[in-house]
Amino acid sequence: MKINDKEITIDGIDKTILRALMSDARTPVLEIAREVGISGAAIHQRLRKLEKSGIISGSKFVINPKVLGYTTMAFIGIYLDKAMSNPEAVKQLQKIPEVLECHYTTGNWSIFIKILCKDNEHLMHLLNKDIQSIAGVSRTETFISLNQQIDRQIKI
Amino acid sequence: MKINDKEITIDGIDKTILRALMSDARTPVLEIAREVGISGAAIHQRLRKLEKSGIISGSKFVINPKVLGYTTMAFIGIYLDKAMSNPEAVKQLQKIPEVLECHYTTGNWSIFIKILCKDNEHLMHLLNKDIQSIAGVSRTETFISLNQQIDRQIKI
Amino acid sequence: MKINDKEITIDGIDKTILRALMSDARTPVLEIAREVGISGAAIHQRLRKLEKSGIISGSKFVINPKVLGYTTMAFIGIYLDKAMSNPEAVKQLQKIPEVLECHYTTGNWSIFIKILCKDNEHLMHLLNKDIQSIAGVSRTETFISLNQQIDRQIKI
Amino acid sequence: MKINDKEITIDGIDKTILRALMSDARTPVLEIAREVGISGAAIHQRLRKLEKSGIISGSKFVINPKVLGYTTMAFIGIYLDKAMSNPEAVKQLQKIPEVLECHYTTGNWSIFIKILCKDNEHLMHLLNKDIQSIAGVSRTETFISLNQQIDRQIKI
Amino acid sequence: MKINDKEITIDGIDKTILRALMSDARTPVLEIAREVGISGAAIHQRLRKLEKSGIISGSKFVINPKVLGYTTMAFIGIYLDKAMSNPEAVKQLQKIPEVLECHYTTGNWSIFIKILCKDNEHLMHLLNKDIQSIAGVSRTETFISLNQQIDRQIKI
Amino acid sequence: MKINDKEITIDGIDKTILRALMSDARTPVLEIAREVGISGAAIHQRLRKLEKSGIISGSKFVINPKVLGYTTMAFIGIYLDKAMSNPEAVKQLQKIPEVLECHYTTGNWSIFIKILCKDNEHLMHLLNKDIQSIAGVSRTETFISLNQQIDRQIKI
Amino acid sequence: MKINDKEITIDGIDKTILRALMSDARTPVLEIAREVGISGAAIHQRLRKLEKSGIISGSKFVINPKVLGYTTMAFIGIYLDKAMSNPEAVKQLQKIPEVLECHYTTGNWSIFIKILCKDNEHLMHLLNKDIQSIAGVSRTETFISLNQQIDRQIKI
Amino acid sequence: MKINDKEITIDGIDKTILRALMSDARTPVLEIAREVGISGAAIHQRLRKLEKSGIISGSKFVINPKVLGYTTMAFIGIYLDKAMSNPEAVKQLQKIPEVLECHYTTGNWSIFIKILCKDNEHLMHLLNKDIQSIAGVSRTETFISLNQQIDRQIKI
Repeated sequence: MKINDKEITIDGIDKTILRALMSDARTPVLEIAREVGISGAAIHQRLRKLEKSGIISGSKFVINPKVLGYTTMAFIGIYLDKAMSNPEAVKQLQKIPEVLECHYTTGNWSIFIKILCKDNEHLMHLLNKDIQSIAGVSRTETFISLNQQIDRQIKI
Repeated sequence: MKINDKEITIDGIDKTILRALMSDARTPVLEIAREVGISGAAIHQRLRKLEKSGIISGSKFVINPKVLGYTTMAFIGIYLDKAMSNPEAVKQLQKIPEVLECHYTTGNWSIFIKILCKDNEHLMHLLNKDIQSIAGVSRTETFISLNQQIDRQIKI
Repeated sequence: MKINDKEITIDGIDKTILRALMSDARTPVLEIAREVGISGAAIHQRLRKLEKSGIISGSKFVINPKVLGYTTMAFIGIYLDKAMSNPEAVKQLQKIPEVLECHYTTGNWSIFIKILCKDNEHLMHLLNKDIQSIAGVSRTETFISLNQQIDRQIKI
Repeated sequence: MKINDKEITIDGIDKTILRALMSDARTPVLEIAREVGISGAAIHQRLRKLEKSGIISGSKFVINPKVLGYTTMAFIGIYLDKAMSNPEAVKQLQKIPEVLECHYTTGNWSIFIKILCKDNEHLMHLLNKDIQSIAGVSRTETFISLNQQIDRQIKI
Repeated sequence: MKINDKEITIDGIDKTILRALMSDARTPVLEIAREVGISGAAIHQRLRKLEKSGIISGSKFVINPKVLGYTTMAFIGIYLDKAMSNPEAVKQLQKIPEVLECHYTTGNWSIFIKILCKDNEHLMHLLNKDIQSIAGVSRTETFISLNQQIDRQIKI
Repeated sequence: MKINDKEITIDGIDKTILRALMSDARTPVLEIAREVGISGAAIHQRLRKLEKSGIISGSKFVINPKVLGYTTMAFIGIYLDKAMSNPEAVKQLQKIPEVLECHYTTGNWSIFIKILCKDNEHLMHLLNKDIQSIAGVSRTETFISLNQQIDRQIKI
Repeated sequence: MKINDKEITIDGIDKTILRALMSDARTPVLEIAREVGISGAAIHQRLRKLEKSGIISGSKFVINPKVLGYTTMAFIGIYLDKAMSNPEAVKQLQKIPEVLECHYTTGNWSIFIKILCKDNEHLMHLLNKDIQSIAGVSRTETFISLNQQIDRQIKI
Repeated sequence: MKINDKEITIDGIDKTILRALMSDARTPVLEIAREVGISGAAIHQRLRKLEKSGIISGSKFVINPKVLGYTTMAFIGIYLDKAMSNPEAVKQLQKIPEVLECHYTTGNWSIFIKILCKDNEHLMHLLNKDIQSIAGVSRTETFISLNQQIDRQIKI
């Protein structure tokens, strides 16, 4: 593997460390050390190397949004009048905390977003008040996720 | 807030704890304790309560897929012959590690997935060999994410 | 006006009676009589005439479905493999009590229905279990009513 | 069941009363009383309770529009230039008596209406003169209901 | 049959006359007379009656446009910015002699036309110069008739 | 002009003759002769030449279908399972007298027809019983002509 | 065959010469001469004749764009506000060297182009900066060629 | 530049050589030598190096298909029943000499081809007889290129 134009090798031990932390970021280093069969210090050293290489971009607590009352997830395809207003529109979308993802895609939409709302009515208010009032947004096409069956990271 | 049909209150201190861990799951408890101004034991107690309430659904290391050579992200709308085959199709999709999300959505697709591939050619092979060979899949509609500008969790 | 191939005249008094009962079917006949300025017996006679003419097709209590927990209204365009299965498909749709309206329309759908569900998840179950399992249904296209601003009868 | 944040119980007797009045709003209270086997006064008391709870939102005479010459029912998807003009557009649609329903829906239309016209020519005039002259309406997509096979309320 | 609000009867003889003239407008009256078995004068009288009734709207020589070099027939769906410009747009379309039919249709186009051009290049010039320059025309969708297998009048 | 690979000249007199007969096929030859200023025999000779050249493909009485009760004109885009069944499907469409035109077109339909029905209900029966029962027809897309503003032949 | 309104015959020898040069433009004339069995001078004479006739429009080295780092080929359907701006838009497209083909097509796009980019990101920049900034371009619809299996000239 | 994993440099002289041969493959080497100011042998040596590097994939005579009577160019989006039949379908398309390009694309088609036909009728026969008879082809969507304004290679 070539990372940052330098050759970096991630061996089987690196993979075991990464897999453990990908499924639970708070796994104690000593537990991993025991599993792998090397010292905790060696684990720490490898983690520093992996962080420096850019493979690990961070760690985060995952919040269950349903418990917080967010039950309506939707995807919205956005048509812009002029794609020149694209970076400006994205800036406005960033101010809406319910917008979790924003993509520039091939196909017939200019921008494609994933949004998480409390319920259908909340979604309607975001569409009407916050999204469609952005300069350049001419039309939106919404589809609601009725159920999400897969949600995971890429496998190492 | 009502969680699991019981009233649960998350106060300002809970929110500070959650925000710290949402941005970095490995933030040491003592550091949070210092910031909030209560003992580490109290932080631990609150964390146990939040975990029991279901607000925290886990923690994970976030891997940068670009460093691993995954540069083509795409969304695929899947038409099924008969939506009865939906659960069966999802089972097959789960076996494809590049499929990161799978939704059942309103609109004209039966299933909507997010997929992460090494490059456009890899995407074509997954489409041709793995996805379109699933029983019940009659047609797919692919659009590639040329750029992702927003990627975050819901704000507490 | 020609009704059942016979000329029938509905005069201003008929209209006043109909409008009163259209907005509240339980308006006492005597109250209408007082308003119009003719006897209750005359009102009764006119009502019998209007019922015989077919203008009045019934009267009904209107239930507020939201109070009963039905909060997700959706429209579903249904594609059939062969429109020959149309009458058969309608028969199956009639067995699903959540289906409130069913139309045969121009455009690209074979059948177009209005459905009232408890929530988005309930809608998904109806789609997956009850609607898409009907023989001949090849594909559905769902859109959710996020808000209904007008709901009324034709004006007399 | 929880109504207006207070727990309200509708028992079997309530359901029998509601079903009778849902199919014919003018069913005499005494007839229902006889069927259920309790006094008319008790029926009246229960009706007052149900009305207060909000389950009953009214009662109405149902008019047969075909007898009045209204034979063309259509659905119209309306695209607005800017969804900001949505509430304003709805206000204008409310002035057109032939518009029976108006929804804000997911999918590709901004507004979705149900309209009842005398014939196809009447529909064309409403489209050309009344609907498409509303400020903000950029385009409409009409489909005619050639036949309606189901028309009912939700089942209690 | 009711024509112009007066009852008019077309009997078998009328139908025979009409069918003969529908297939060849220049069929000599005497030939029809012989076939039917009534006098030429009687045929003339019936023709006058049918013309007065409005059933016959004219007669015309049918020209073979292919011989004149018109080989590309196309249908064009026209989107207007505002359907208010509809009558004005039709006025402009009437000035283009290649436009043979113009309809106001349900569905997603404002206007739908049939056009007959010398070849594909001629079609492109009409689209670019004559049709898309009409005020209000925002977009067109063209499809070419590669072959016409049926072309006839309604059967009497 | 080149017709049937032979050079044929239609001069101004030919055009005058054709235009007269295109607007009224029963214009007496002597009337045309007077207008043009040549003998009736010369007109007859020119007509024979034009008929031989194939420019004139016939003449017909034009019937007003509205007077006969045909008020709903519609266009139907037909999707076939396999375009191989195209010639067979056309054969079946030819047996339906209400089908006035049938085209094989570019775009997304296999076959595109023009149909003239008594009313919307008649259209629905033709769709359900006659068209969608044709082997190979998988789906239809109907749009109704609400008004026809232009209907003419190509100009000479 | 008729070329430039003059009859030109290309015989079997011409075809052999053309086929040789179509597959490799630098085939030595003497090699062709040997194959065909006539003198090199005769080949030169025939080539001059074919060039004059217009059949040969040139010869070119074919560059392998992948070697130069161009790996993302895409097709883009362009919607213009007004097709009047068509020739102007084409002029602007000609200034973008990555645009290899530009067509005016039937269907729903105004202009249809083939574009060759270094990678998906390059494509996004061309779309955002160069194409969508062209006056008159209202919207684009992109699809990426994941693989090209056929690329050839018409067979002689 | 890195070619075949080896660093290869193409300097200004290489580019001049390539540009000359890209616009006219039969440019004499000596002419290029004179222009560049180095010996013909040096040019030959550089050409061999460029050919070995894979930058030059060949040279070809370009035939003007209009002169050969090919005037209708079209693009066809092909829907397959099952994309598994994709390689098989491509094999069949390769047997149709009028198919000049074949792509596997994102978007809603399985296969996208460019085809060059003599005229619209020829296109219809290819669609009906040759393309739609391929096993797995369920539907096609054709659009005709009315005019091609740009046709070139990538710029060096």
